[in-house]
Amino acid sequence: MKIEKPTLYIIKERVVDNIRHMAHKAEKSGVTFRPHFKTHQSIEIGRLFGQEGVRAITVSSPQMAEKFASEGWRDITIAVPLNPNCVDTYNQLADAITLNLLTDSAEAVNLIGPRLSSPAMIWIEIDTGQHRTGIDPSGKDKLIATVEAIQQQPLLMLKGLLTHAGQSYQVREGTPVRRRSDDSKTDGKSSGGSAKKDKSTLDFIYQSTASTMQKTASMLQEAGYGKLEISIGDTPTCSRVEEFYAVNEVRPGNFVFFDLMQYHIGSCKEENIALAVLCPIISKSPERGEIVVHGGAVHLSKESLEWKGHTIHGQVAELEGSSFSTLLTDTYVKDLSQEHGVIKAPRHWVEGKQIGDTIAVIPVHSCLAVDALGAQYIMNTG
Amino acid sequence: MKIEKPTLYIIKERVVDNIRHMAHKAEKSGVTFRPHFKTHQSIEIGRLFGQEGVRAITVSSPQMAEKFASEGWRDITIAVPLNPNCVDTYNQLADAITLNLLTDSAEAVNLIGPRLSSPAMIWIEIDTGQHRTGIDPSGKDKLIATVEAIQQQPLLMLKGLLTHAGQSYQVREGTPVRRRSDDSKTDGKSSGGSAKKDKSTLDFIYQSTASTMQKTASMLQEAGYGKLEISIGDTPTCSRVEEFYAVNEVRPGNFVFFDLMQYHIGSCKEENIALAVLCPIISKSPERGEIVVHGGAVHLSKESLEWKGHTIHGQVAELEGSSFSTLLTDTYVKDLSQEHGVIKAPRHWVEGKQIGDTIAVIPVHSCLAVDALGAQYIMNTG
Repeated sequence: MKIEKPTLYIIKERVVDNIRHMAHKAEKSGVTFRPHFKTHQSIEIGRLFGQEGVRAITVSSPQMAEKFASEGWRDITIAVPLNPNCVDTYNQLADAITLNLLTDSAEAVNLIGPRLSSPAMIWIEIDTGQHRTGIDPSGKDKLIATVEAIQQQPLLMLKGLLTHAGQSYQVREGTPVRRRSDDSKTDGKSSGGSAKKDKSTLDFIYQSTASTMQKTASMLQEAGYGKLEISIGDTPTCSRVEEFYAVNEVRPGNFVFFDLMQYHIGSCKEENIALAVLCPIISKSPERGEIVVHGGAVHLSKESLEWKGHTIHGQVAELEGSSFSTLLTDTYVKDLSQEHGVIKAPRHWVEGKQIGDTIAVIPVHSCLAVDALGAQYIMNTG
Repeated sequence: MKIEKPTLYIIKERVVDNIRHMAHKAEKSGVTFRPHFKTHQSIEIGRLFGQEGVRAITVSSPQMAEKFASEGWRDITIAVPLNPNCVDTYNQLADAITLNLLTDSAEAVNLIGPRLSSPAMIWIEIDTGQHRTGIDPSGKDKLIATVEAIQQQPLLMLKGLLTHAGQSYQVREGTPVRRRSDDSKTDGKSSGGSAKKDKSTLDFIYQSTASTMQKTASMLQEAGYGKLEISIGDTPTCSRVEEFYAVNEVRPGNFVFFDLMQYHIGSCKEENIALAVLCPIISKSPERGEIVVHGGAVHLSKESLEWKGHTIHGQVAELEGSSFSTLLTDTYVKDLSQEHGVIKAPRHWVEGKQIGDTIAVIPVHSCLAVDALGAQYIMNTG
């Protein structure tokens, strides 16, 4: 394939497989599957979720909620703390669909509540360890003040407690993840014939998150505030656990494509990664063992990870038919400027490439690459 | 100002002042000013350049060239090595305007030349120290092979040698830059009454770059390949030197807005920074000394710099009237997720803020923030 500019390439079979796997696990576990659409931001990929029975979704901005509401999605959570300046947008949405807001303070509730003209659901965000947003679950007073502020607002209905265990993104398992299809075999072969599986760090984060959320919900129930639902969300734990227990809803997003970060965290196998940024080669330096592609920070994002002693912005595969090769050995995105991507690679590989050839860069963070490329892509259909 | 979403805010007087200062220096030095439009990507800001007499511009992709050509710009350099797959776009452009391409190999020239249908100018890129793209000037054979490949192509005219001394971005002056208006005063007061100014690292990078380019051009001239023009480009050296010597053309771009990186490099004073990303506050944690704004990696980009022992993604100012305050002490963007920006700040400042208030984040790299926000902005009008 010869391309004019950096182009997002998506392997449809892998997308569908990733969606089905997560939808099936949610169904089997008896929880609501409310995938985060910020990863793909695509009407077309949204429809693939619809085909797997998904009816409730998560987005990360009021603008994204408007986009998917206009496409017919009728139950949307905006999973960032509410901004009172968006009240007009919230009212328009709440008038048309089931709108779910998020808050972590009585202050925000008091600012938005009196200005609502249509009923909206609201979740309280709990900080279960990421320390970004959310109420510290040990801060009972702040939590109860927020619940009571919601109860004062006739058009706000408290739905439950929500968290994003973003600390799971710090995990580097360092060991290969079992293939999905290997799960049953591996079980049978575990040492001593025990059915108990090894727990991963991600399993422990899930367990600890679910436990904190349950204790917090129980505390509020015992204090007379009713029974609240529990919603969790990050892709690493949701991908790794074998079933969703102790929660009512899961909101992973990234798993639809996965990416290099998820691969290194241990959330997926290489063959689950459904997306690459195809880049044309514009310069070669066999002496330095480098090629330069048109494909920079405005296409891949400057997200990085540490790998074999290097800070890298991506790894590289060849486009093979309608799929990618395995990741090339000792080949990675070493540096990014606005439009240029510098790729370190073995000299013989550089020498075998021609200016204008296409390579597939697996981005560190697919959500950011998709956003950077305006959610425009080509998808294989075969 | 109450805002619904992260919004680029531009101070027009500073933009005009930055353009005039660079245009005046180029005029005084007798060199062509061909500003890089990738920083702003804006038709409106392009017109401000036109008002200062600019007629020749630089862009970073064929698509950007098409955008500005359709707005009436008639002399455009695409300052990334050419991609032979773009030949149709190049031909359309070359048919309508003076198109200047860039190459660093005979291979690329041989791939594009026979497919051109209209005449185009071409620059040879020289690597003067960034080691990204460009021909090593000590590699005489490769250089001459490229020149000769161009001479074989009837529709390609060799214009000159071009470089981007991107190594200037590694400089951290660590000392305040003189105010422009202080220049004459500072001169008169220098120790011992000498008129000689202290040379900065950026002055030395300029000098060394210009010298390498001149030697390379002389070598080619002596070898019988005619007299070639010299084009240089980076904002740090172009901002810092007092005059442009030993070159024919300058192509800085970032100076139109500057940003935190340029400020820390020493290319500008704080009061020259013409751009901020306004962000609404969506969460507060006085205990941790943190606020969270709607304003994340998809708005600011994940570009970072080291500052006082922290890796930061921006510093913070207050919006004051139609301008910004000075940078707030001990306040910086500590972390970015897709939509969230976590800002570390003194507790009393956090306590004084309300959910929905607006703060001004000075991004590390304005080019990337502008691109991330789709080159959409509001501009004060005076």
